[in-house]
Amino acid sequence: MAYHRYALQDIAGSVPIGFEASVAGGIPIIKALREGLSANHIESIKGIMNGTCNFILTKMMNEDVEFKDVLDEAQKLGYAEADPTFDVGGFDAAHKLLILASIAYGIHANPEDILIEGIENINSEDIFFAKEFGYNIKHLTIAKKCKGKKVELRAHAALVPSSQMIAKVDDVMNGISVIGDRVGETMYYGPGAGGDATASAVIADLIDIARVGQSSPMLGFKRDLEGGGFTLLSSDEIETKYYMRVKVLDEIGVLTKITAILGDFGISVDSFLQKPDKKDKSCATLLFSTHTCKEKNIQNAMKELEKLSTCKEKPVMIRIED
Amino acid sequence: MAYHRYALQDIAGSVPIGFEASVAGGIPIIKALREGLSANHIESIKGIMNGTCNFILTKMMNEDVEFKDVLDEAQKLGYAEADPTFDVGGFDAAHKLLILASIAYGIHANPEDILIEGIENINSEDIFFAKEFGYNIKHLTIAKKCKGKKVELRAHAALVPSSQMIAKVDDVMNGISVIGDRVGETMYYGPGAGGDATASAVIADLIDIARVGQSSPMLGFKRDLEGGGFTLLSSDEIETKYYMRVKVLDEIGVLTKITAILGDFGISVDSFLQKPDKKDKSCATLLFSTHTCKEKNIQNAMKELEKLSTCKEKPVMIRIED
Repeated sequence: MAYHRYALQDIAGSVPIGFEASVAGGIPIIKALREGLSANHIESIKGIMNGTCNFILTKMMNEDVEFKDVLDEAQKLGYAEADPTFDVGGFDAAHKLLILASIAYGIHANPEDILIEGIENINSEDIFFAKEFGYNIKHLTIAKKCKGKKVELRAHAALVPSSQMIAKVDDVMNGISVIGDRVGETMYYGPGAGGDATASAVIADLIDIARVGQSSPMLGFKRDLEGGGFTLLSSDEIETKYYMRVKVLDEIGVLTKITAILGDFGISVDSFLQKPDKKDKSCATLLFSTHTCKEKNIQNAMKELEKLSTCKEKPVMIRIED
Repeated sequence: MAYHRYALQDIAGSVPIGFEASVAGGIPIIKALREGLSANHIESIKGIMNGTCNFILTKMMNEDVEFKDVLDEAQKLGYAEADPTFDVGGFDAAHKLLILASIAYGIHANPEDILIEGIENINSEDIFFAKEFGYNIKHLTIAKKCKGKKVELRAHAALVPSSQMIAKVDDVMNGISVIGDRVGETMYYGPGAGGDATASAVIADLIDIARVGQSSPMLGFKRDLEGGGFTLLSSDEIETKYYMRVKVLDEIGVLTKITAILGDFGISVDSFLQKPDKKDKSCATLLFSTHTCKEKNIQNAMKELEKLSTCKEKPVMIRIED
């Protein structure tokens, strides 16, 4: 579905194709988007669409354990595959996002066209920062309408204010928050995987077809009805807030160098925390968040920071979605 | 709709009637229940379906203010009517529950047939108890399948474990948690009122009708397809857990009398808190929760407690739904 949904729609013609189970398992999100919210232009979709990622991040938030240990546990519990890359790398969630983006925006993109990151780099210091500043860390899929008929599509870890409903979706559960221009925010929550949940979605499709046949176009609207003409925003042009973790030698002048680099790229710091390194007393970890800036500038600043001789590890960045 | 939905269905015949906006405003819950979850037998529905109640209870939980003060504020903000009884008395939510119960269980009941209570009696001591034992207080509507083709329908305040998703629905927002026998729990969240949210639901109905006409029976299934034959459980027969607040003279032997009365009705205490009265030092407030017992027994025990000369106020009871 992530690659061939438009080809399938063309081949099917007037033959109904049901694919409710392809996104968020038992949650009838495709029906909600295609029919329940049909009166709305969709401003944005934010989803927790991968149960493995959500299970791991929930454990990390609640129990102060590291990624690798929780992944081991998830594999033992059957929540993660032997090769977990497709899940924890963000690819599974991104595939589902593309299906929803077709329905909301009629946009034809493939996984390689969009920004996809996983949760492998998140550690207990990121969790510490998140708690300190009232965030939860979630793997989010985001589809958002921007200026100039552009649509932003991305799947990555994000700091989300703990007060938001999407931040409260825990464990292996999925949740999708949709903002419509009329209705405002609605959210859909439920099991994203499992035989019974998937069957629930498949059988509902069959019942729909038995009741009525093809009631609405497979991807929601015929593309020309929806205004069409949406194109994908380049990842470089994404604008959001960022959190960064930088491990440095604890020396005089390091902070000045770092803030100078950020300033060069027009990046302004919002909050800041410095922690001594647990193992190596000569090092410190800098944790900070920024005001809104461009993805391109953050990426370039990260490359410059990495070149510093006082920088002891590749800096880690997590986007902030509030 | 709460009174005449079956008559309307009969009059309409094959003419489509859309009524998505009649329950939970902008949330497409009727579509979800009638179509998205059509593969499931519905085990239960728990809803927060009245924004006024939820706004007041959220404020009481977060800001330690009393019911009357928040009601005043809600009236000033336009969240509550000049005569707030229909909302805070639980009637509005109960009306909506009856519509969902028809779709889930084909059950034809009127508001007078079911247990309806409001939130007027809840005070800061109940809030204190709830926080102490990990609950949130919400006005819930409940439809639940019980043994012997019975369906339990009720609308009242309830202590809900804070970890449950439905407990996290705050402010004026609505949320409906549905448990299907296959899919498990799904939850639907969004604005329950307001012109734009309501319009979103009405227009979606019109688009559905334009696309396809009458795709599924107005109340979900023809009654005989669903197995039919569900009848309403008598309120007396409801079984759940209970929380109780009893203000007594702080004397030797009072607690013994109270526990003896509870014992006479087969009621077993789960947790217990005693607080000195803030204003009247000769009095104490007893706050306790029970194990599962019958509604009839609690109601009778409350009457006996009220007769005690040491009991200084009518005891207050809130059901616990976990």
